Amino acid sequence: MHTHAYGNHAADRPLEALTIERREVGPTDVAIDILFCGVCHSDLHTALGEWGRTKYPCVPGHEIVGRVTAVGGEVEQFHEGDIVGVGCMVDSCGVCPSCRESEEQYCTGTGFVGTYNGDDRHLGGHTFGGYSKHVVVDQAFVLRIRHDEKNLAAVAPLLCAGITTYSPLRHWKVGPGQDVGIVGLGGLGHMGVKIAAAMGARVTVFTPSPDKREDALKLGANDVIISRDAEAMKAAEGKFDFILNTVAAPLDLDPYLRALKRDGTMVLVGVPADPHKSPDVGNLIFRRRSLAGSLIGGVKETQEMLDFCHEHGLTADIEIIRMDEINTAYDRMAKSDVKYRFVIDMASLA
Amino acid sequence: MHTHAYGNHAADRPLEALTIERREVGPTDVAIDILFCGVCHSDLHTALGEWGRTKYPCVPGHEIVGRVTAVGGEVEQFHEGDIVGVGCMVDSCGVCPSCRESEEQYCTGTGFVGTYNGDDRHLGGHTFGGYSKHVVVDQAFVLRIRHDEKNLAAVAPLLCAGITTYSPLRHWKVGPGQDVGIVGLGGLGHMGVKIAAAMGARVTVFTPSPDKREDALKLGANDVIISRDAEAMKAAEGKFDFILNTVAAPLDLDPYLRALKRDGTMVLVGVPADPHKSPDVGNLIFRRRSLAGSLIGGVKETQEMLDFCHEHGLTADIEIIRMDEINTAYDRMAKSDVKYRFVIDMASLA
Repeated sequence: MHTHAYGNHAADRPLEALTIERREVGPTDVAIDILFCGVCHSDLHTALGEWGRTKYPCVPGHEIVGRVTAVGGEVEQFHEGDIVGVGCMVDSCGVCPSCRESEEQYCTGTGFVGTYNGDDRHLGGHTFGGYSKHVVVDQAFVLRIRHDEKNLAAVAPLLCAGITTYSPLRHWKVGPGQDVGIVGLGGLGHMGVKIAAAMGARVTVFTPSPDKREDALKLGANDVIISRDAEAMKAAEGKFDFILNTVAAPLDLDPYLRALKRDGTMVLVGVPADPHKSPDVGNLIFRRRSLAGSLIGGVKETQEMLDFCHEHGLTADIEIIRMDEINTAYDRMAKSDVKYRFVIDMASLA
Repeated sequence: MHTHAYGNHAADRPLEALTIERREVGPTDVAIDILFCGVCHSDLHTALGEWGRTKYPCVPGHEIVGRVTAVGGEVEQFHEGDIVGVGCMVDSCGVCPSCRESEEQYCTGTGFVGTYNGDDRHLGGHTFGGYSKHVVVDQAFVLRIRHDEKNLAAVAPLLCAGITTYSPLRHWKVGPGQDVGIVGLGGLGHMGVKIAAAMGARVTVFTPSPDKREDALKLGANDVIISRDAEAMKAAEGKFDFILNTVAAPLDLDPYLRALKRDGTMVLVGVPADPHKSPDVGNLIFRRRSLAGSLIGGVKETQEMLDFCHEHGLTADIEIIRMDEINTAYDRMAKSDVKYRFVIDMASLA
């Protein structure tokens, strides 16, 4: 079947309306009418070919919320009319150690299949993402959404920004009594603040922008450190149990590593286009600190995150746009001019 | 009281015989006649002023084994005639969180006092190390040696090389069923191999030198990977639970990070003079790997390590030298021409 979508035909072309094919609903498939789709920085990087491996036409979007329209004969968990989500993955090998441990994002068999720009195992070619009216996804990669239907637009970013921050906070056991730093207050960082605070930690935002202070506190942070203030960074040394660094631009990691206590960990979730300055090994050795990385989260953990956010009343702070505003949204996103996530109202795509 | 020692008066001067002062035995002190002192790379770096903060005259040595000659009135655990050890530390604040948790090496109060080149709290000036006939140390920093007296020379390197490798192997819970890599087969690396094997892990040595293969296997390694062999490094990807990297020269860490499994950790124990190439953040993110550092070990853990080595019959592989051979030994050590640790027989110092 064909469905309306929005994408581009080359790195130097804007996104525009186009038509893509979706597979027929197989026995384990869930067919979904997409209601909202969040706009992630990865969408922009991929559409503009900045990572050098984009297949065109490119239809981005992996923060999908929609309504089930049909299910395959073997699907028991989802029914027509259910509100569901789809995140960054739509397939994985299912048998490697990571898949068996519900960590499909680290699949070492085939690698996971991205919701867009992945290898489509059903139709051949490559996968098309959530900038579209309709999608068909295997039930193993469909999430249940329990949030009130009036909040669905703000739920969409949980599918990537939410799980990308929730997973490391959970994996490294962030909780009450801990001091947690969140570096960067963008789409990821603002979710990191909300989730870490909901987990009971004292949250400090590191940002170069003094004008983000008020917002950070409103989002749930207890404190804000202006990262350009060398004295403030010096005063932060040895204070943090855990730091989640959401910045994807080249950065001097050393002041943040020094802000960790003994045995503290800083986790990076963004890959910069150019390398970070090489971190000072002494900052690791003299306090037994760790520098780690983390990638989204598994399907099971994504469901856990959605349920956690529902329980704690957490959604993203968003700006809703029409589908045909996406190119302008990319321009604004490239300048960090968004608080804190664009979400496309898919009703705007005819 | 005065004691014979060996040290240098400036970075560009060789080591030579000199006389230093040791304090009188206080109520909590242990006086020790030094029998053997291991020769650590730090000795060389410090004596030659390569770290830029050497106080002269410099008397190195922090792998000390000796016999107790006197104890203070409040000392109950040690008695005249006991064989004891002293490692890299002779004091710390005692009250900071790290000290209270027996991790004096990470003391955040005053910092730990190095066995040499530290600030001497008793006599003023700076501390003098184990290249000497006699030392007086607070009982809290004295270790009990249970090894047979005929092996004491080979026990000395455990006080630094032993604990520097044991501590991270223990902290990151290395044990049976795990694949552990040891990068570099020098003074630290050869102890890392012995200890990791005794902990029950399958041990692989990474070395650029094919001629170290046989030695590595003799020391207890199950496998050797020649790190200059790009194909062998490629084949090692995703195989290791834990890697202990003992190399202190600038290194491309990426092939080793890629050799880790998901959730694996590589620990650095050496600070290179120039930075390592900045590690590829993608190697951390796409398998949730960690890069960490570790510094020697606490007093309690050093005792645990000595007892572990005694129980498993582990000592260092050494070459015994006379005190007046130290300058030649430094030259040879700088060329990695030692298997695997020089130990000074202190009877050779008149």
